[in-house]
Amino acid sequence: MARTTLSTPLPLARVAAIVQGELTGDPSALVFGISEPETAQEGDLVFAWTKKAAELAFCSPAVALVTTRKFARPEKPCILVNDAKLALALFLEALFKPAPITPRISPTAVIGEKVRLGEGVFVGDYAVIGDGTEIGDGTVIHPHVCIGRNVRIGTNCCIYPHAVIYDGAVIGNRVSIHAGAVIGKEGFGFVWDGKQYRRIPQIGTVVIEDDVEIGALTCIDRATFGETHIGKGTKIDNLVQIAHNCVVGTHCALAGQVGLAGSVQLGNGVLLGGQVGIADHVRVGDGVALLAKSGLMDNAPPNTQWAGYPARPRMQWLRTEAALSDLPDALKLLRQLAQRVTELERALKEREEKQK
Amino acid sequence: MARTTLSTPLPLARVAAIVQGELTGDPSALVFGISEPETAQEGDLVFAWTKKAAELAFCSPAVALVTTRKFARPEKPCILVNDAKLALALFLEALFKPAPITPRISPTAVIGEKVRLGEGVFVGDYAVIGDGTEIGDGTVIHPHVCIGRNVRIGTNCCIYPHAVIYDGAVIGNRVSIHAGAVIGKEGFGFVWDGKQYRRIPQIGTVVIEDDVEIGALTCIDRATFGETHIGKGTKIDNLVQIAHNCVVGTHCALAGQVGLAGSVQLGNGVLLGGQVGIADHVRVGDGVALLAKSGLMDNAPPNTQWAGYPARPRMQWLRTEAALSDLPDALKLLRQLAQRVTELERALKEREEKQK
Amino acid sequence: MARTTLSTPLPLARVAAIVQGELTGDPSALVFGISEPETAQEGDLVFAWTKKAAELAFCSPAVALVTTRKFARPEKPCILVNDAKLALALFLEALFKPAPITPRISPTAVIGEKVRLGEGVFVGDYAVIGDGTEIGDGTVIHPHVCIGRNVRIGTNCCIYPHAVIYDGAVIGNRVSIHAGAVIGKEGFGFVWDGKQYRRIPQIGTVVIEDDVEIGALTCIDRATFGETHIGKGTKIDNLVQIAHNCVVGTHCALAGQVGLAGSVQLGNGVLLGGQVGIADHVRVGDGVALLAKSGLMDNAPPNTQWAGYPARPRMQWLRTEAALSDLPDALKLLRQLAQRVTELERALKEREEKQK
Repeated sequence: MARTTLSTPLPLARVAAIVQGELTGDPSALVFGISEPETAQEGDLVFAWTKKAAELAFCSPAVALVTTRKFARPEKPCILVNDAKLALALFLEALFKPAPITPRISPTAVIGEKVRLGEGVFVGDYAVIGDGTEIGDGTVIHPHVCIGRNVRIGTNCCIYPHAVIYDGAVIGNRVSIHAGAVIGKEGFGFVWDGKQYRRIPQIGTVVIEDDVEIGALTCIDRATFGETHIGKGTKIDNLVQIAHNCVVGTHCALAGQVGLAGSVQLGNGVLLGGQVGIADHVRVGDGVALLAKSGLMDNAPPNTQWAGYPARPRMQWLRTEAALSDLPDALKLLRQLAQRVTELERALKEREEKQK
Repeated sequence: MARTTLSTPLPLARVAAIVQGELTGDPSALVFGISEPETAQEGDLVFAWTKKAAELAFCSPAVALVTTRKFARPEKPCILVNDAKLALALFLEALFKPAPITPRISPTAVIGEKVRLGEGVFVGDYAVIGDGTEIGDGTVIHPHVCIGRNVRIGTNCCIYPHAVIYDGAVIGNRVSIHAGAVIGKEGFGFVWDGKQYRRIPQIGTVVIEDDVEIGALTCIDRATFGETHIGKGTKIDNLVQIAHNCVVGTHCALAGQVGLAGSVQLGNGVLLGGQVGIADHVRVGDGVALLAKSGLMDNAPPNTQWAGYPARPRMQWLRTEAALSDLPDALKLLRQLAQRVTELERALKEREEKQK
Repeated sequence: MARTTLSTPLPLARVAAIVQGELTGDPSALVFGISEPETAQEGDLVFAWTKKAAELAFCSPAVALVTTRKFARPEKPCILVNDAKLALALFLEALFKPAPITPRISPTAVIGEKVRLGEGVFVGDYAVIGDGTEIGDGTVIHPHVCIGRNVRIGTNCCIYPHAVIYDGAVIGNRVSIHAGAVIGKEGFGFVWDGKQYRRIPQIGTVVIEDDVEIGALTCIDRATFGETHIGKGTKIDNLVQIAHNCVVGTHCALAGQVGLAGSVQLGNGVLLGGQVGIADHVRVGDGVALLAKSGLMDNAPPNTQWAGYPARPRMQWLRTEAALSDLPDALKLLRQLAQRVTELERALKEREEKQK
């Protein structure tokens, strides 16, 4: 099912121009759709950035491939690029322009006092914007978004339906916040006072830098004091939990359902797989990668890879997991060995006694 | 606390008729409430589909049991059925009818251009429905639901408050979408362009077949291209993440907080326990079951059961976990054994030298 | 970045009075801000409740510490308290009063028939309150909250934007329900009827006692019958899933992304780390603590600590994990040992044969 028909067929020469690639084969051959290799039909174009995908595509009815030089073969026309995934992005950008949004402030939007809206802002139906909030040029506030007081949102952001931004959050330019995300809620800070948990007021804020993307139903809590901070260009998937006082570096990628406990610090370019958890106050160096579902309980030096729970260096984890598979048999062997050693000890002793 | 009082007491004969069971005992005995065995009071009816529950119920003040022949005993009246859980569903359906919803389009709902609403549709307060969207007969759109443009929703669906459906999603008949769920958001697709992550436009869609249930605050992303697909009759719990291009078969059950990475394929009748994670592009055969919290990283053949992380076949996992419990003692034994072997080697060598 | 400047500088004597501590050092020294030790600037006050934090603070430019007697040192003025974390709460409460909310019923709120609103209630824009619902004195209903029919909410509660409360839920006094939380949705109860999953009607309810806090985007499902129950003073973080018929005791703390399957029972004072999962019908005693990411599959007696998946007693888990790290080397040793034993057996046999 991973296939889409183009609204008008395109000659390969045109595709090559769009993706800035080098065409081998008939430039007038027509592309009717794009597809993953498994579902490719006649006339489909396949973007293949793995060897396996390229091989499958060559055996499919696809008309042509966009791929790298090393996976290309003479059987089908190829458009050679450095990065077939990037080529896919270029192709989709060129062909599938999102419908433009005409700036408009819905009459049903509730806009507080001293709110400053930039040029070309769109505010959808029933959106609520609190007193003193500023919204930059070209930003789109979808219906039903709730924005608190004294929030600052930059230019060309897109805030999707039902997102909630609490008072005082600071959001950069070109930030996307998807449906239902909750930004700047007070952190989960309590102290036991002898009788009950008492809330520690959370007087800090959240700062989100430019070009960040925040997935649907993701929570980023504000700091106890100071700020929770998300660095420029970082991409966060759905249902992620980022607790108070976390500091996330630039250009990180956090997959779905990741959870960061309080005061976690991620360096730049950190990659977290789905459902990863990181314990409070843990520091993660630049370029660290954590495999999906791992749970990190200690600091991770830069450019290391981790897996498992508690997380181990990736190679060690692989060895440990392989060893685990052997464990039941190893325990059997161990018990047999213990018996054989006892037997040997007995035999040797017997012999010694005989020789006396 | 797991007990509810009936609004009017019912004789056992009437209960037996409702659940289509065979009554042993006084047909005029009255049922005043239903309860789990632990909380049963005098006059309560217990539905017992496990041996343990039946045993507890027989020792409780309950008036009677609905259970299977093999758990029945003469001490209390029993209503014998093939499936006591199914009987519970029949009983609750018969006695607790949900309040009917009178069709009505709220004057505060914002309904776009060229929207087609079927017969008997309910649209609640402040719901927003985008241009070109079609909604089938008898469907209930609760307050504050946001539906995008060109969405197609079938008949007799129920969309709960704050659910968000992005542009172009296709939803079948009798589908429930619970509060705050987000359907058809663009997938988490980025490519590093050398300087930053660049979004890969997500031009695909989401297709949800008939009789699907989608839990509260669950995300189902749309495909990069092609479609993310949820098969007929599949039930999905709360806070589940289904990434772009996943294909879920028919009659699957996904428990809370499950996460499917991109392009995962589930066959029909797959069961996923709570907090299960599945890595991208993994294929899961028909009838596969994954124990709660397991993490599947490789394809699973049909009708297999898996557990752990990385997931292992269930029996192997049980053996491995049992072995793990023995591991600390085994390592001690191993070290002692190593010493004993060294000692034996030394003794043997000594002897040999003596004999020379 | 974990630092905040005070709006007006405060002398240490004043701080000591606020936190009810004993001051050592110059009472007129001025505090300009509060900070964590790592980010402390000249004039900052540090609240230090760990030895490490106190040591860092003494080496920082901070003007003074609030700490316990045992971490105090003469190098800097100290305000001695029994609990520095509690002192932080007192300090923040005193200095950072939340902006008061003026009672008001928004004209855009939709309020059903026979709704009873107490004194001083605030109902925000576009909130929807169903027929027969009661809301106690001083409760704040933020914009876009959806409350069903016949819901009972106590006094001085705060329900944040986009929270959804289904019909019939019962909520105590001083309860906070954060943005997007979903309370009282029908539980995930289905039974296979031979052809498809059939819904088991969920006719129970949810009861939430006084002083409970429920995080953003957290789900608490209503019971199949009877009630799902959250005890007094319990604090629940974001993105938590609490399934039908769970009973949570008083003064528990559940961290982010925790999942409780159906009918789980937690005692009082239970602590669950982030991403913990508990299998259905498991009973957890008073004072039990589960480490983050653990998965509990069996009952846990009172005052025990657990970790791992499947969860083991914490000390056993630590020993097992340590043993696991040694496993690959142990398996090597085991194989060598097996060879050495075989060699010994061979040597002994040879000798015996010689001697015959």
